Parts: sequence; structure tokens; C-alpha cells
Amino acid sequence: MSAHAFLGLAATGEAGRYQLPIHPGLCVGPAGNAFMFGGVGLGAAVAAAEHATGRPLVWASAQFLSYARAGDTLDLAVEVLNGGRNVSQLRVMATDAGKPIVSVNAALGAREGFIDDQWAAPPADMPRPEDCADMAIWPPQDGGAAFMHRLEVRVAPGRYGATPRDGRRSPDGRQLMWMRTVEDAPVDAAMLAVMADFVPSGLAAAFGTPGGGNSLDNTLRIVRLVPTRWVLCDIRIAGSGQGFGHGAIYMFAEDGTLLASGSQSVILRFVPERKGA
Amino acid sequence: MSAHAFLGLAATGEAGRYQLPIHPGLCVGPAGNAFMFGGVGLGAAVAAAEHATGRPLVWASAQFLSYARAGDTLDLAVEVLNGGRNVSQLRVMATDAGKPIVSVNAALGAREGFIDDQWAAPPADMPRPEDCADMAIWPPQDGGAAFMHRLEVRVAPGRYGATPRDGRRSPDGRQLMWMRTVEDAPVDAAMLAVMADFVPSGLAAAFGTPGGGNSLDNTLRIVRLVPTRWVLCDIRIAGSGQGFGHGAIYMFAEDGTLLASGSQSVILRFVPERKGA
Repeated sequence: MSAHAFLGLAATGEAGRYQLPIHPGLCVGPAGNAFMFGGVGLGAAVAAAEHATGRPLVWASAQFLSYARAGDTLDLAVEVLNGGRNVSQLRVMATDAGKPIVSVNAALGAREGFIDDQWAAPPADMPRPEDCADMAIWPPQDGGAAFMHRLEVRVAPGRYGATPRDGRRSPDGRQLMWMRTVEDAPVDAAMLAVMADFVPSGLAAAFGTPGGGNSLDNTLRIVRLVPTRWVLCDIRIAGSGQGFGHGAIYMFAEDGTLLASGSQSVILRFVPERKGA
Repeated sequence: MSAHAFLGLAATGEAGRYQLPIHPGLCVGPAGNAFMFGGVGLGAAVAAAEHATGRPLVWASAQFLSYARAGDTLDLAVEVLNGGRNVSQLRVMATDAGKPIVSVNAALGAREGFIDDQWAAPPADMPRPEDCADMAIWPPQDGGAAFMHRLEVRVAPGRYGATPRDGRRSPDGRQLMWMRTVEDAPVDAAMLAVMADFVPSGLAAAFGTPGGGNSLDNTLRIVRLVPTRWVLCDIRIAGSGQGFGHGAIYMFAEDGTLLASGSQSVILRFVPERKGA
């Protein structure tokens, strides 16, 4: 039984157990090094947690422990730590043949009678997706890494981080991108978990450098889901120190509703030269 | 052996095991309900992780599972999941007589040869601490909750969230507070973990309401530590939905250096009436 169509997450016969077969459509990476996109790991854990509890996600935090590759199958185990009247707190461990790949802590729930509000907003002059251009800054991908072909990404040319990576530092550390899946899959919490993993791209834009980094974590906070085709990803880099970069992402529906926020810490790979972890 | 003087964290004879006796100086809460301040749990886990690995913190995320009270003793167990050349990834479980209180995922390390930079900044017109006034908006505390007496908090009167809680919504969701400990304890990663747990206060300011909320998590990202007496806590609320609020905090040294960022999701307790979880 499918627990998430875009990711291909399958419920097993056992309660709280799910499987995610890794195929090229879930992988990214340069020639010779295709691996599962980190956000896919958080997305699968979020979908499993929502399916297992029947509750909507509030917050989830993924710790990336190792890589998965095409041909692997992730086993996801949902362990409920607190099953309250309105809030479930749990952990999801994703393993490949027993090897830990991603560990996710999360809380789920919905409570009636409170006020929906938002203070975060995108810049008023960000053009709509139809007035933007396809983003062409991704590094060339391995033949077995097709995830980026499933995404459409549009940027405002020459603005908001869509500038040549010629070493010039961004003055504001901000990168804005419209994203949707080519399949037009629903924008749910799992999809926002996937999109939240683009902070490394914003770090490269902030430093004005090609390349990226390796995420240590991927943290997602769902504010309010409304139907939307495109998601405006507003990445705001905070800073870097001791060889790591840190940033946040705010994700908006086409009507301006704040859907979710996210944040990540990243092992820098590009300043001033490539280094091993 | 003390692993953190301000918190009173003690290393035990066993590697990776620590103890935190809970006393009123670590507790907050209204009359009749004193409990360990959540940030203290993350701070103790951070201090334990740094002590156990000998590495500085990069990122840590606490999941709050239950409450600890004065008289309890937290047992902290550091479990290293990945001990890389430059990065340690681990989990710290804090339990009270076997009952899980806080679960923390974290990464630690320092890498040479990269660029320290920052894009986040406080407002240029925020007055210095000596030109601010003592904050007087905290709810009255239980007699056994003395943690707030160990903190000095100063605000710019009438500005940046230091406004009457008369139901008026903040236009920008931002609250700025200078903080230091009365003891002038060093501003290290554990101390910033404690200060990062003030996002619920920023939520109350954003809604213009007294009261607060219960944190589901506390996520901390260390950018760069420099010596400072005061820390400027710049809380930026993103939004609220399905009964939960979400916000970030940026923490600056007196010289403007970005020390760390943090973020939290919070069970709302004050809009429009108190509700149980």
C-alpha cells in the first residue's frame, strides 16, 4: 500500500514499518557519485509518521548519518515516544540493511480554536513563476541521479541569488526560487521536507561560489497547508564558522500563505577549496 | 568533576555518562508548577556532548518528552553514532529514573581553512544594554523556580516587542532582548542553548498576549563564539497554525558577531484561551 506516491513509500504489513526503494528518481550527485537526496529521507520519515499516527506533522528534524544509493531499500521504523490527546511525539529510524541512514525526531497533531497567523513574508517584488526563468546553476548530475529532472525551478534573472557564481559575495545571503514537481504532486508535509533541503544551494549563492555542501540535518516546521501548485522557497543564510554554514528556508504558497519554515547546518565543501569531512 | 559550572553538570566515573541534579536555580514556572527550564536540558546535553568528544558544538536539536522537577536528577548518556575525522554525530538521552525527559541529536567539530562570515544582523538602532530597561513582563514565578533570578534581561522600552501585552498584534513578530547571567558565566554553546529557549516569549510578544507556550523542541546552530558579556537575542516569529507557533532566534555578541541561531515549535497556550495538550 502506498503511503506516499511521489516518493514511492510503501506501508508493510507490520504497524509502524515502511519501506522506501531507492531509485535514480530519488537521487542527486555529480558524475560517479549519485546518492539519495537528503530531503527524500526526511520526507519519507514524515510521510511514515503521518500515516502511522493519522495526524498532521508539526515539526520534524532529520539527522543525516550515512548515504543511501539507488538499489538500496530504506526500512523505516516509527517509534511513538508520547501519544498524547492532541500531540504525538516520535522517532523514525531509517536504515539500509541495518545501517542507520537518517534519524528523525518529530511531533504531530492539530488543535482546534487557535489563531492562524504569519509574520514571515517574501519580498513584494519577487516575480511570479511565469515571469521567471529556469534555473541553470545546478552542477551536472550523474546519469543515475534523476531527482533534479523531477523538479522545475524558476528564478528571477539576476536577482535574489540567481546571479553568476563568480566569487562575488551576496550582500543579503538571500536566494529565492519557485519550485514545483514536474508530476505536479500535491504539496504536503513530505514534499515540503524535500524542498527544505535546498539550504546548501542558498549557501553557495551567498558565497557566490559553485558547489554546495553536505547537510548535517534538515529541520522542518509546518505552519499551515493550503493548496498550491508552485512553492516559493525563500532561503536566508545566517552565517558560517568553524567550517560549517547555517541557514533557514521559508516556503510560501502562490497566494503568499506561509506553508512551512526549515533550517539546516551544512559541512562547507567549497570555500576556499574542497576538503574532506 | 564539573562538566558545566553554571548548570552544575557532573561527569560520572563512566565515559559518556553525566548527571544533572535539578534545583530551583534551573527551574521556571508559575505558582504551583515549577519545572526545569527546557533550555537547561539542551544546554546540559550540549555540555555533555562537548565534554565527551572534546569537540565544539555545530548543531543540536532537543525533543522535549517530559518534565523534570527540583529534586530529580537527570542522567545523560552520550551515544556516538558517527565519529568522523572532523565531525562527530551523536545522540544524548536525558532520563530521570529511567523516564525519558529530553532526547538530543547533535553534530560537533571544527574544520580549518574555511571562511567565517555572517549575513544575519540585529537592527542598527537597537540601544546598548546600558541604555535599556529591565524587562518586567515575565509571569510571577513559583517560589521554587529561581532560574529567572539568575538572568538579567534588558529591553528597549516600547520597542522591539517590549510593549504592553494588551492584545495588540505585533506588526513584525520581532522581539529583542539583551541577556546575561547575574553570575556572568561564560557565554559558551551550552549557555546559548539555554538562551535559545526564549522563542515562546517572542510568540507571546507577537500575539500581544501574556502567557507563553510549551516548546516541542529547541534547535541550536553555533556560528562563531567570541567573548561577550551580554548576548542580544533577536527573536523572529514566523507564524502559527493548527494550534502551534514557530519562530527563530538569532544571538549576537556585543560587538555584533553572530554567535548562534536557533528555532522552536511551541504548543500555544494563550490564544484565545488556555487548552490542554
